[in-house]
Amino acid sequence: MREIFEAELQQIGDDLAEMSRLVESAISRAGTALLTADLQLAQSVIAADHAIDQLERELDERCVLLLAQQQPVATDLRVVVSALRMSSTLERMGDLARHIAQVARGRYPHRAIAPAAEATFAGMHEAATGVAQRTTTLLTTRDLAVASTIEREDDTLDLLHQDTFAALLNETWDGTAQQTIDVTLVARYYERFGDHGVSIARRVVYLVTGDFAEERGVTTP
Amino acid sequence: MREIFEAELQQIGDDLAEMSRLVESAISRAGTALLTADLQLAQSVIAADHAIDQLERELDERCVLLLAQQQPVATDLRVVVSALRMSSTLERMGDLARHIAQVARGRYPHRAIAPAAEATFAGMHEAATGVAQRTTTLLTTRDLAVASTIEREDDTLDLLHQDTFAALLNETWDGTAQQTIDVTLVARYYERFGDHGVSIARRVVYLVTGDFAEERGVTTP
Repeated sequence: MREIFEAELQQIGDDLAEMSRLVESAISRAGTALLTADLQLAQSVIAADHAIDQLERELDERCVLLLAQQQPVATDLRVVVSALRMSSTLERMGDLARHIAQVARGRYPHRAIAPAAEATFAGMHEAATGVAQRTTTLLTTRDLAVASTIEREDDTLDLLHQDTFAALLNETWDGTAQQTIDVTLVARYYERFGDHGVSIARRVVYLVTGDFAEERGVTTP
Repeated sequence: MREIFEAELQQIGDDLAEMSRLVESAISRAGTALLTADLQLAQSVIAADHAIDQLERELDERCVLLLAQQQPVATDLRVVVSALRMSSTLERMGDLARHIAQVARGRYPHRAIAPAAEATFAGMHEAATGVAQRTTTLLTTRDLAVASTIEREDDTLDLLHQDTFAALLNETWDGTAQQTIDVTLVARYYERFGDHGVSIARRVVYLVTGDFAEERGVTTP
């Protein structure tokens, strides 16, 4: 019985890591598509999102079956419940990558991001890709040092998010209304993406150490 | 054993309804604060959000305990897992109401919403309040007719969301960059609020009928 349970748990861990790899690829390609106005790349991100959604459904079904058949308690139970939450978070991260790709596609053949904000979004692209890569590493290795790196990358995203507002409100900003909308929304997508990465990092820390720092502002706007 | 389980399940249902009532109050007051630049009302929404977060944590803890102690299977198990998901959705709806209140507070003593977009946001306020009220009704009564009403209110929110883009991109739009940002973000908050209401509606329909229409675009941007 225990062996079956361990194997099932391993499979759930592998599925989470696989979802995270797909999210990593999606956010990286979405950011490049956005910065370079690459239509094909944007479309590939949009087309690939269903695979993440599908993986979430399978993983959830597997978790519910595991709860029903193995009736885990204590730590085992928390691992399964956390997996349910993390799969939903990863699915949402995939959606945010898709939203960024949709903005890139919507403005093609132009670049969505006005030149004045390009450097900021290059920074967000780098930080968000870092969050995604480290999320995969954390889910694979459970190395808690990686969790703090995710928190720092998220801090970077928050600062860059503030920078976008500063740029938009500066009197030198001469973007069109469409450019103002795009900067506002895409910066928000990146900022949320970072929050979700932090949410996963804290869940893994909780599972490993029993200390959950949910109160520390994961859900701030 | 079964009696204890039923009582626990009833308590979880009551907690979800209570969370929904708090969300209903939050979104209604946030919208009024936004449209009338009412600082005190905005602050009351922001201050009250922690009660929703607290209720979510208690509810989650109760669900995990129930899974551990009662080891439900089949439908009972799905009810508990759905409650975990719905509490997280309601918590997020509370956050969105708080974000709207934060925009109202940030622009005080001015109104955040430019006059040209006021009518649209009055409509979003009404539709979102409708979604929240009906979510409470649905969670209390399990009356599936209410679920379709939530879907229709969400369709209204989506249309009004599109209207805000049309207004911002119209050549007659003469709002400041701050007003463009606020219209863009608050419209997005309302649109997401509606999506979350639909997500709860579909979960309740699934629990009652066994038919889950997750694929029908809940997570579209």
